[in-house]
Amino acid sequence: MYDVTEIRRDFPILSREVNGKPLVYLDNGASAQKPQVVIDAVTRAYAEEYSNVHRGLHFLSNLATEKYEGVRETLARFLGARDESEIVMNSGTTEGINLVAYGWAMPRMEEGDEIVLSVMEHHANIVPWHFLRERQGVRLKWVDVDATGALDPQKVIDAIGPRTKLVAITHLSNVLGTVVNVKAICDAAREKGVPVLVDGSQAAVHMPVNVSEIGCDFYAVTGHKLYGPSGSGAIWIAKERMAEMRPFMGGGDMIREVHKDEVTWNDPPMKFEAGTPGIVQMIGLGVALDYMMGLGMENIAAHEASLRDYANERLTGLNWLNLQGTAPGKAAIFSFTLNGAAHAHDISTILDKRGVAVRAGHHCAGPLMDHLGVSATCRASFGLYNTRDEIDTLVDALELANELFG
Amino acid sequence: MYDVTEIRRDFPILSREVNGKPLVYLDNGASAQKPQVVIDAVTRAYAEEYSNVHRGLHFLSNLATEKYEGVRETLARFLGARDESEIVMNSGTTEGINLVAYGWAMPRMEEGDEIVLSVMEHHANIVPWHFLRERQGVRLKWVDVDATGALDPQKVIDAIGPRTKLVAITHLSNVLGTVVNVKAICDAAREKGVPVLVDGSQAAVHMPVNVSEIGCDFYAVTGHKLYGPSGSGAIWIAKERMAEMRPFMGGGDMIREVHKDEVTWNDPPMKFEAGTPGIVQMIGLGVALDYMMGLGMENIAAHEASLRDYANERLTGLNWLNLQGTAPGKAAIFSFTLNGAAHAHDISTILDKRGVAVRAGHHCAGPLMDHLGVSATCRASFGLYNTRDEIDTLVDALELANELFG
Repeated sequence: MYDVTEIRRDFPILSREVNGKPLVYLDNGASAQKPQVVIDAVTRAYAEEYSNVHRGLHFLSNLATEKYEGVRETLARFLGARDESEIVMNSGTTEGINLVAYGWAMPRMEEGDEIVLSVMEHHANIVPWHFLRERQGVRLKWVDVDATGALDPQKVIDAIGPRTKLVAITHLSNVLGTVVNVKAICDAAREKGVPVLVDGSQAAVHMPVNVSEIGCDFYAVTGHKLYGPSGSGAIWIAKERMAEMRPFMGGGDMIREVHKDEVTWNDPPMKFEAGTPGIVQMIGLGVALDYMMGLGMENIAAHEASLRDYANERLTGLNWLNLQGTAPGKAAIFSFTLNGAAHAHDISTILDKRGVAVRAGHHCAGPLMDHLGVSATCRASFGLYNTRDEIDTLVDALELANELFG
Repeated sequence: MYDVTEIRRDFPILSREVNGKPLVYLDNGASAQKPQVVIDAVTRAYAEEYSNVHRGLHFLSNLATEKYEGVRETLARFLGARDESEIVMNSGTTEGINLVAYGWAMPRMEEGDEIVLSVMEHHANIVPWHFLRERQGVRLKWVDVDATGALDPQKVIDAIGPRTKLVAITHLSNVLGTVVNVKAICDAAREKGVPVLVDGSQAAVHMPVNVSEIGCDFYAVTGHKLYGPSGSGAIWIAKERMAEMRPFMGGGDMIREVHKDEVTWNDPPMKFEAGTPGIVQMIGLGVALDYMMGLGMENIAAHEASLRDYANERLTGLNWLNLQGTAPGKAAIFSFTLNGAAHAHDISTILDKRGVAVRAGHHCAGPLMDHLGVSATCRASFGLYNTRDEIDTLVDALELANELFG
């Protein structure tokens, strides 16, 4: 039984007020709030069990290493990975995708080679490929979404040509909530011998993910969106791809031996983890993933689907509101603008006065904004602790904004 | 008045036991423990004030942004930077030096160009340059230390030739405790038009640092060694160098606009900060730096100098102990081996039984190990909360180890 009232008590920040109103936190697409178990794990790690990891032999170092390395297994379980050595722990999706760009793509792509990506990618899954375009002449091939925001997997598959070296695609749009059929894309791409990187930054938050079933080559996630600490994250990389990669950042832990004239690398995944890692953040992320799996990813998805349906019903009833993204099976992420002159930023400011936290802007999705023909939208993005009452509060606040600006 | 007993009460972990003995934490070179104010700041940030930064307009986002961005000013003050826009916030020295390697050195160095570095660099200040050697034929020019572990700045200056494009040098050796006269090196290098990167990972922990006085071009620090959270850090970069740099990681925040066919960059320092940053870690680091500055960096340095002198006196009295590094003015970091067959790892295990945490291994300093002709040492590294009594406990435990293995 998914008891959202009970669950909300796990998140201390949700009981606070903002501008004299109860906080209605609908900015989960940007970052999620943290349950007390995660905060406690972070506190305990610093107050009782802290040390650097891997390189020590003393009690605290062994303890911290055990806790930190245990998260790799948790991540493997969370992502349905067959082998925890395919998990590279890092600071989030941005670092994960840059690792692939610098460590895998850069040394093997030549002028005229192509990367296929959708128009609704987040900048984290665009800018690293722009680097390859600018620096070595790689071509970016963009696939559009339809009027509902849906992405036809066949259009992605059709875009794969003889020079295509990579498909880089989101699993779930952070702006439209569109869920992409990445399995269909991966099945076809594998037949053509083209690896697929999936940006799972949003998807892993809202639905069960199984990289083995998807059949992708790279799957990146971000801890702070997964109810874990800031600065945590991971990327799952298929063994075959890992074997093809050169190191990205150089430093401690990722080496076997360093001499004046030569250097040899540690085995993967350590080869791709340089320097002292985000020890305590990763320990906190492990607890956050266990918390989510304890609730059940299917249950979280079902709760959010119910929120999506209710929000959809309420928001489509507002005839002065332009909803962006109505693809079937979408997640509970709603981007919108208001008829009339109101700028997204002004709307979000009005909502904020009512305690409702939404985001206004380009949502790190410039090409999608170009595609939609807008410079910014407001975005209400839901999480596992949101309620129908909060949707009512959102709608009331939107009505106020419409009265003021409409 | 520097009251170490009082100060120790600020660090909750210091009152714990390890293997039935009071913890004697002498592994500060690897990572420092955290005062309660830092732990509290982290807890508060998650429990009451958490949101993503920069891209929101709602109350919590503004609050988190204000706290996060405030740390840039704290870092500038801590490092003696004239302008906080010269501070790039990141996950630590490893990321900082890789930023310089990829963003500054890689696009401007050609085959046969040289980087001058000392034999006692940490791997974080070696491996990124090995990348340039392997990938584009850059030559590494190594400068040796003398028998005491001192580095003659003139030898570094003399190594600068017409093909030298960078000097990359530690300010304080993490193995020997040697303090390097980086100002003398920078003065001479500037006259020759060669930029200097200083690895301040250890130095900033133990002494006042002023980048404006040093006259370097890059100065990297690591938050978790500075009594701050894991996964925090920064690099100071002179404006002129920043202007020469291309972006390193691509993602959110570091862009101005992203379109299908072009991308433009945010102004520095944001240009070099991709994706959601380590928000809470950085807020914690700001509190840690304020804590250190509250005690006074001169006072911390004086306390540690007194520990160094006492440890030196006690340790040199053990005629079966081989101390590595006796350079004048060194910091309170002692590396040693024991006569006889005892491996550094075995010694550290014995010390651990007595509650004494030291590190055994190569300390991420392979070329220095080669230079010293050892594969590993034990290292006792002191911090602002250590005491003379703890030195006595260390010596007692070493005597036990010598009885068992000597």
